[in-house]
Amino acid sequence: MSLDGCLAGPNLSRERPFGDGPNPLDGWFLQTRTFRAQIGEEGGETGPSDDVAAESMVGIGAYILGRNMFGGGPGPWGEHPQWGDEPWRGWWGPNPPYHTPVFVLTHHPRDPLEMEGGTTFHFVTDGIESALRQARDAAGGKDVRIGGGASVASQYLAAGLVDELEVHISPTLIGGGARLFQSFHGGDDEKRPALELIRTVTGPEVTHLKYRVLNH
Amino acid sequence: MSLDGCLAGPNLSRERPFGDGPNPLDGWFLQTRTFRAQIGEEGGETGPSDDVAAESMVGIGAYILGRNMFGGGPGPWGEHPQWGDEPWRGWWGPNPPYHTPVFVLTHHPRDPLEMEGGTTFHFVTDGIESALRQARDAAGGKDVRIGGGASVASQYLAAGLVDELEVHISPTLIGGGARLFQSFHGGDDEKRPALELIRTVTGPEVTHLKYRVLNH
Repeated sequence: MSLDGCLAGPNLSRERPFGDGPNPLDGWFLQTRTFRAQIGEEGGETGPSDDVAAESMVGIGAYILGRNMFGGGPGPWGEHPQWGDEPWRGWWGPNPPYHTPVFVLTHHPRDPLEMEGGTTFHFVTDGIESALRQARDAAGGKDVRIGGGASVASQYLAAGLVDELEVHISPTLIGGGARLFQSFHGGDDEKRPALELIRTVTGPEVTHLKYRVLNH
Repeated sequence: MSLDGCLAGPNLSRERPFGDGPNPLDGWFLQTRTFRAQIGEEGGETGPSDDVAAESMVGIGAYILGRNMFGGGPGPWGEHPQWGDEPWRGWWGPNPPYHTPVFVLTHHPRDPLEMEGGTTFHFVTDGIESALRQARDAAGGKDVRIGGGASVASQYLAAGLVDELEVHISPTLIGGGARLFQSFHGGDDEKRPALELIRTVTGPEVTHLKYRVLNH
């Protein structure tokens, strides 16, 4: 998250899942050894931010993502140069970094999409509670991680369905676009959970915060 | 600042300088031994948050505040039960915690107001650059601290007049009201400074971040 509360800039699209402007994941997550291993690449940075990235991958049995995090554009599923004549299979490439079942919230039904490396995308059209139920079943007792984007994370927080919140504060100002806490803007107090800080790790640039969410 | 970027809730007023909802200074600053000493009280909490509070007071030769931080209401200067028959002299009481010259940005001219303990409020009606000039002159080589609120801090940031930024992230969600980075919302990229994280301190609840502001 940028210091001004954004997970992505304005004008999100299939090709620009972080919108315009600086990407708050740049400068730490995408460079870590952990993330590079998740996409089948070698090398990458080690240190406190890599430790946090590694810790966040432990014990995850399923992910939930919004459509832009899968790489869906504003229209129905279509083609894209990356995939040649194949239908669009997301912007993560053939071996996405999840390696578990992934439940993608969308308005466009589609059959499950099995990728390399253990990732299968399931497309859920009947809402966040259904997606959570399916993800819990698929996770087999492990944790379900809500991977974003901002709108999806914010909806789950407002629904009281989040136990822990990890926020990585990047030294950037984005000024608009996808806000993590957008569900709470101008809303009533009762929807806002209380938070308890349970862990802080300082990377060279980024501050990694972990909160327990005290739902009402 | 709350985790969702607010320094105060909605409906700021003279009597409620932090607006509606939780006050992000509660839970750390107001309880510290350092702040209590500034208002002439004994006791208070020690530990990392108190260390940060103490550090932030060192070497300050003048403050700049917005009118709500002085305790000005929406109307012209008037009376208030706290002050009996005297004209309103701010909500900090007879011995405010500044102990230096304080320059208050306002649209309502008023003669300087000398308080106990070395604080003199000067009322500046000709804008933020004039206030900074006057504060620098008064500080005699020491630092000028922009004490807030959100609107004033945001204006100075947008004007490229801030060298260092301290943000104390409180585990609260406020959902609206006075946002620290409101000057940058939807604005052009050029107005937004880059930031460099130079120090993190973790208190029991609050994360204290200090950035160098890299103005264009």
